[in-house]
Amino acid sequence: MAEKSFLYESVSEQLRHHIYQGSYHAGEKLPSVRELSRLFRVSVNTILQCFRQLEADGLIYRHPRTGVYVSHRLPGGSSAGSVVTPLFSMLPVEVSLSEEILRYMEPHVTQPMVRLGIAMPDPVIMPIERIMQTYRDITRSQAENVWQYIHPRGEERFIQQLTRRSLNYPVPMAEGDMLVTNGCMEAIELALRAVTRPGDTIAIETPTYYGSLLALEVMGRRALPIPTDATTGIDLNGLERALRQGRIAACLVSANAQNPLGSLMPAEAREKLAWLAARYNVPVIENDIWGDTVFGEPPPPVKAYDRDGMVIYCNSFSKTLMPGMRLGWISPGRFLHRVLELKQVSSITTASLPQLVMARLMETGFYYQHLRHLRALLEQQVSEIADLAKQYFPAGTRITSPAGGCVLWLELPDTIDCSRLYLEALANGIHVFPGQVFSPGPQHSNCLRLNAGSPASQDMEAAIRRLGVLCHQQLS
Amino acid sequence: MAEKSFLYESVSEQLRHHIYQGSYHAGEKLPSVRELSRLFRVSVNTILQCFRQLEADGLIYRHPRTGVYVSHRLPGGSSAGSVVTPLFSMLPVEVSLSEEILRYMEPHVTQPMVRLGIAMPDPVIMPIERIMQTYRDITRSQAENVWQYIHPRGEERFIQQLTRRSLNYPVPMAEGDMLVTNGCMEAIELALRAVTRPGDTIAIETPTYYGSLLALEVMGRRALPIPTDATTGIDLNGLERALRQGRIAACLVSANAQNPLGSLMPAEAREKLAWLAARYNVPVIENDIWGDTVFGEPPPPVKAYDRDGMVIYCNSFSKTLMPGMRLGWISPGRFLHRVLELKQVSSITTASLPQLVMARLMETGFYYQHLRHLRALLEQQVSEIADLAKQYFPAGTRITSPAGGCVLWLELPDTIDCSRLYLEALANGIHVFPGQVFSPGPQHSNCLRLNAGSPASQDMEAAIRRLGVLCHQQLS
Repeated sequence: MAEKSFLYESVSEQLRHHIYQGSYHAGEKLPSVRELSRLFRVSVNTILQCFRQLEADGLIYRHPRTGVYVSHRLPGGSSAGSVVTPLFSMLPVEVSLSEEILRYMEPHVTQPMVRLGIAMPDPVIMPIERIMQTYRDITRSQAENVWQYIHPRGEERFIQQLTRRSLNYPVPMAEGDMLVTNGCMEAIELALRAVTRPGDTIAIETPTYYGSLLALEVMGRRALPIPTDATTGIDLNGLERALRQGRIAACLVSANAQNPLGSLMPAEAREKLAWLAARYNVPVIENDIWGDTVFGEPPPPVKAYDRDGMVIYCNSFSKTLMPGMRLGWISPGRFLHRVLELKQVSSITTASLPQLVMARLMETGFYYQHLRHLRALLEQQVSEIADLAKQYFPAGTRITSPAGGCVLWLELPDTIDCSRLYLEALANGIHVFPGQVFSPGPQHSNCLRLNAGSPASQDMEAAIRRLGVLCHQQLS
Repeated sequence: MAEKSFLYESVSEQLRHHIYQGSYHAGEKLPSVRELSRLFRVSVNTILQCFRQLEADGLIYRHPRTGVYVSHRLPGGSSAGSVVTPLFSMLPVEVSLSEEILRYMEPHVTQPMVRLGIAMPDPVIMPIERIMQTYRDITRSQAENVWQYIHPRGEERFIQQLTRRSLNYPVPMAEGDMLVTNGCMEAIELALRAVTRPGDTIAIETPTYYGSLLALEVMGRRALPIPTDATTGIDLNGLERALRQGRIAACLVSANAQNPLGSLMPAEAREKLAWLAARYNVPVIENDIWGDTVFGEPPPPVKAYDRDGMVIYCNSFSKTLMPGMRLGWISPGRFLHRVLELKQVSSITTASLPQLVMARLMETGFYYQHLRHLRALLEQQVSEIADLAKQYFPAGTRITSPAGGCVLWLELPDTIDCSRLYLEALANGIHVFPGQVFSPGPQHSNCLRLNAGSPASQDMEAAIRRLGVLCHQQLS
């Protein structure tokens, strides 16, 4: 009897815990008496006793015929599953850039906002239905290929389509130089891990994509910012001076529609950068994620001039077709072996379904048709938002003329503090990104990045007018 | 004129390269004259001149109306795209375990074989059509969710299903303790990177899964093998002696149907292992990938006893439902922050499609129905292959009685060299895995792992008979 009463209390306690932690939300049905009796290896009577107690405590209610459900209001006032909290106290961590960036990103996912924050074309301008149809076609026609593991390098048909992208490169890509990844960020991370170690210094553009800074921080690498021009990209003289001092382990560069500047390196500069990599024996990691969005015709990347295998090329379809596809690739030049090893012991291989989908969309030419349409739309949206910004932001505000992509970089009058502006905008239901997170130091506090991924709307105009008002308030 | 001739030669050279490297395979159509003229920014006449030269050289042929195609035999005797070779010479690397393992794995993917090598249930016993149907349903009903990025932790509905798996654990899992990964290997890799550094020593079972050894090697960690019993798993006394010496940074353990032994740790041993982790402040990484295949009812994992957050739990659906899903999860206890940071700067987040598919298959109960069926089948297949092995292998061969999974571990008479046996089997169209790759040292050279993932067949019996003959030949 003593043991039995212990048993039922222990089972009740476990069920109570799951209800409070949200394994079963308000109104959801618990497993049957028989199922619980099997799981906990106790008698049916013990489970019935638990139910009586949990009901008396107000955690569950019984429906005569269908079973037992979680109450809509739990004792203590919370509704079931309303908070996501870890069970264990975490180890102490320093407050770091990563937490700051996460805080800035959070509103995008948690609140309805005018989305001028995250750099991303709006789903409304994407051919979602055509992509989903292709997923369905592939699950029908190639079910067994989809089910299987494949070679760590990736699906041959997809890789073949990727190599064809290099048709007009002075140095072409070959199938043997390619590795499929879970998006561009995995490609960049594999590249960084392959060619640098903790403590190493990486030359980066400033301002640059905060995700790259985050990666460097999390991986314990140091960043050396190189001035970067809003029209022509990274300053190669500055970079060469740094390389000459011999303490740079790698460079991380975007030649096409650099985020956040939208700059475009001239062809001669690309060729020179590939040459510098070989000359100083320092790998260049090329993040080309915005390459396919360059307005007009995208020029060949730095990798196109890589005669020595020192350029590691990274790209994905997150900005041009579908972020949730998580599909990217890397062409790691001389570092292929090491990148392949690292990939094999992390995700082993990238799922084949998105690869087969993307191969189909490239084989039929659909992806390239879509790109022509997307580029024209983005160019128009960027110009519309730029016009609104010129109209409403304070005099003296400098606005970039991006060569591609969907972001604008605004340099506001010196005295404006954009992290304050961020908070004020948030309170007005507007999500933007403050400039500080685009460099490792305290620079760019008077800068702001605006996403122009969505078609202009009245809400958007109202939001930009409001941002302008907030700026004027700071100035006065 | 001089420049024009230079142009046409340079374009011809690039096309020639792409044809030999396989961007366009034998019989495939090249882009149109107009398309190439646009891509290379040269005149239509220049492209026509290239075509004439490539045709004269035998690389392409023209079809009067439809366009230009790659020849079926290229000069030099090779057919287009027949070899996958990297363009760049690689940096020198030492011959390592990773290359040895890759060599042993290769025949599985490249040649038709009797597949006794890779540990994997056969697709014929998997509900592929039902899974594919669920993929199609989700792309219809939740297209926008599939299209999107999601929070790095993963899809809430999926995570909720995962937490319910811990209903009968003494220490339950909560939504806030979970992170979705690209398979179990990514989970293990994130765990290793979160709690250890290069040069650190990890206590492992011996024999153990070669993929874990590979991960340790590639990541520059050292392995301390702890004797592991074919029935009860890792020797906790041996482990505690190692922990007491204070040089172990983490333990990597499988309590359920350990690969390759098929052992099952008793419940008290699981509880003790969780206690040891807390007592010595050394994280235990639990690889539970075979947990759902335990014959009968799988017992709660080590994580179920983790009162201090020192156990990092890793699992996936690769062995029980679909390897190509690339879907796993990690419950990292006290190390959640660091694991989340590392995940964010690698694959950012796991694709939502497989998560929504798996949530549906769990919500409807289908996955658990399927597991009951799968376990019964695997138990039967394992017993059939064991019977065949007893019949055909030399006297003195010891064969495991696995508690789950689909592999058998054979200890053959001492003098048999299983890497020789591997090669001889290969020549007979049989793929097996030699014992050496399951430990970091030269142990287990007389051991062999057999996959029992496929239903017994005449081919299988013939293969095992043949393996027996090869063993007897080595003995005589």
